[in-house]
Amino acid sequence: MASDGLIPETRVLAIASHVVHGYVGNKMATFVMQSLGCDVSAINTVHYSNHTAYKQVKGTKTSAEQMLELYEGLQQSDLNSFDILLTGYMPSAQTVQAVGKIGRDVKLQAATKPGSFFWVLDPVMGDNGKLYIPEDEVPEYKSLLREADLILPNQFEAELLSDTTITDLNSLAAAIQVLHKTYQVPHVIITSLRLTRDNQTLSSRVASTTASGRQTPSESTGTRTDLSQSALDSAVLKEVENITIIGSTATSDHKPRLFRIDLPLLPLFFSGTGDMFAALTIPRLIEAVHASSTPDLASAPSWRSPDDVPATELPLAKACQKVLASMQSILGKTTELCQEKMAAYDVRAEKEGCGQGDEADAERQKKRHLALMNASEVKVVRYVKEMLYPPDLERFRPTAVEFEGHAR
Amino acid sequence: MASDGLIPETRVLAIASHVVHGYVGNKMATFVMQSLGCDVSAINTVHYSNHTAYKQVKGTKTSAEQMLELYEGLQQSDLNSFDILLTGYMPSAQTVQAVGKIGRDVKLQAATKPGSFFWVLDPVMGDNGKLYIPEDEVPEYKSLLREADLILPNQFEAELLSDTTITDLNSLAAAIQVLHKTYQVPHVIITSLRLTRDNQTLSSRVASTTASGRQTPSESTGTRTDLSQSALDSAVLKEVENITIIGSTATSDHKPRLFRIDLPLLPLFFSGTGDMFAALTIPRLIEAVHASSTPDLASAPSWRSPDDVPATELPLAKACQKVLASMQSILGKTTELCQEKMAAYDVRAEKEGCGQGDEADAERQKKRHLALMNASEVKVVRYVKEMLYPPDLERFRPTAVEFEGHAR
Repeated sequence: MASDGLIPETRVLAIASHVVHGYVGNKMATFVMQSLGCDVSAINTVHYSNHTAYKQVKGTKTSAEQMLELYEGLQQSDLNSFDILLTGYMPSAQTVQAVGKIGRDVKLQAATKPGSFFWVLDPVMGDNGKLYIPEDEVPEYKSLLREADLILPNQFEAELLSDTTITDLNSLAAAIQVLHKTYQVPHVIITSLRLTRDNQTLSSRVASTTASGRQTPSESTGTRTDLSQSALDSAVLKEVENITIIGSTATSDHKPRLFRIDLPLLPLFFSGTGDMFAALTIPRLIEAVHASSTPDLASAPSWRSPDDVPATELPLAKACQKVLASMQSILGKTTELCQEKMAAYDVRAEKEGCGQGDEADAERQKKRHLALMNASEVKVVRYVKEMLYPPDLERFRPTAVEFEGHAR
Repeated sequence: MASDGLIPETRVLAIASHVVHGYVGNKMATFVMQSLGCDVSAINTVHYSNHTAYKQVKGTKTSAEQMLELYEGLQQSDLNSFDILLTGYMPSAQTVQAVGKIGRDVKLQAATKPGSFFWVLDPVMGDNGKLYIPEDEVPEYKSLLREADLILPNQFEAELLSDTTITDLNSLAAAIQVLHKTYQVPHVIITSLRLTRDNQTLSSRVASTTASGRQTPSESTGTRTDLSQSALDSAVLKEVENITIIGSTATSDHKPRLFRIDLPLLPLFFSGTGDMFAALTIPRLIEAVHASSTPDLASAPSWRSPDDVPATELPLAKACQKVLASMQSILGKTTELCQEKMAAYDVRAEKEGCGQGDEADAERQKKRHLALMNASEVKVVRYVKEMLYPPDLERFRPTAVEFEGHAR
């Protein structure tokens, strides 16, 4: 990395949602990647006032035709050469198809130069057992997987794509193997797994989160803990739980090489963390590939490390370490600021009063939810330094994951 | 300014164009303001593949209804409190009206707290004697002026808005006085005036630029020198010309307090420099107002300095100094990189050949124009440091402008 913290010049095409207020989708990803020095071309798949976890939103969706027209605009002016494609939330099956056309065209141009194009696909489909896209979009995503170099599903999305129920580390490895082998995806990161305290078996996220009302549909994936006032208080008091990120780069015979990074779960609901993760991974992976001891890894197809590189030495693992160090720092600072803001909000609301009865209660709760959503927008513009120079790296060192049928 | 280079937390609503590729409109302004720590909410007035100086573009315009709907989305979720409104390119008279509605609503909420809201209006209407918006948009802009705290017209736009032909510094002062007095605009910056060598009379930019084909319509204002290969070569060789920026903050009796900053004209066509100027001015002005020796200037209406503050000591002048230092550095680096890229392009094009005849020539010229437009996109993501820490500040020190009827 250069002394200014920037990676070498990189042209990214980012296709995801735009929100006027807040930081999810392309609003998050564009700034994150630009801050690390990437030249980002952004096609916006929706134009919304805010993210959907506010529970109310206005705006419009981009049609597949409009997306293709924008890409044709790039084509006609020789502006469609890209090093990286990042695709996120798509509002319909048709727009996934359009992304497929666009991606294949960009890829075709780079076909003669292995390693010169890399597709990061965030299959934004749902979370916690719930789809938040139309059902006919799922098979479209499946047919897109073969084109991707790296995918970043959450646990639910990984289950959907691999048709494998994930209940423990062995079934997780099996799901990743399906993605590596059946769908030929070289790199996979499963974001935000919730493991039980012994860190060996998975607690179903669906079961553990439904009670706290985290099912809000949203175009952004990530760490979710939507907290009411009482839950916020108790979350601060109760023991810190861990969240686990699992990554893998396939061997030449499509076997997973699994690494994991555990980090404390923050007592807050965030939107856009999935988008932030994907966006930060891109420059960090490029950096790790160029720093790799494997000769010419940057010109190997999909930057796939040779079989003798162990899981924890994979560029993907090194990238994840930096990404999580940056994110944990920024999300931690966001949490502190949010708690201060909400404490002030509650004092103000208490003073103002607001009438009695069910209707007034509902209105009060709605207002508080909106304030909490706003206060928990990731403070990414205030902490660029933490993105450029990830702090406390050692805390996020990846470890190898053993599983049944593991060759090593 | 904090040690991290960021200004205090500032909420900006930015209403301007979006381009997939390149850096004009909101694509430029959002990144610039975010890099200095502003939380930017962005309503995009068009969704284009690229800026219009490429001479071909695909995409769609946002309707006035869609803009208002996005703002209603913010309203219903209590997300419409802003410290700053920045408005740029609007594709129709109706969208200017919509911006008026939005701006007046934001302003109304801040009415009880003078200085807590500031509207920066970039009246993007045309350049070099040519309108590039529908004619019925001009009166709409005029009726919006009264709401603005700072406007940044170019010479042509200043003439249109003030109904005053600008031929020398006295007529320039007269035009600015109309803006201060008739339209009650407290702060004005005239970007990119071309003065003759004696720096006292203005050469008409229309006359001096038509010959070199700089009339390409574009939603972004700024320094324009669209150069053919031969012109590029000769421009590098010929003596450096100056460009002049004039700013003024009105006194209590609406008299201009004029300052100027001269800088060498770079031998390159840039798009988006007007947007960059406006976006950088916002954090720099906030900073200068807070650093001002005038007590409580930040809570004075429109941050207007008392009459005893001379032109060169105005916060506006100090802001412009930093803005231009940053811009000159970044545009200079962009120019160097562009010249390298175009030299390589020309070698490649020469080798490849391309057939004979008028049609082949036209195709060659078109291809070269597209490559030049791409190579001259402002390299803003690579030089954030130059935005945070403006270099060579002394070179851009503002000087006072004397004119007829000048009281001092």
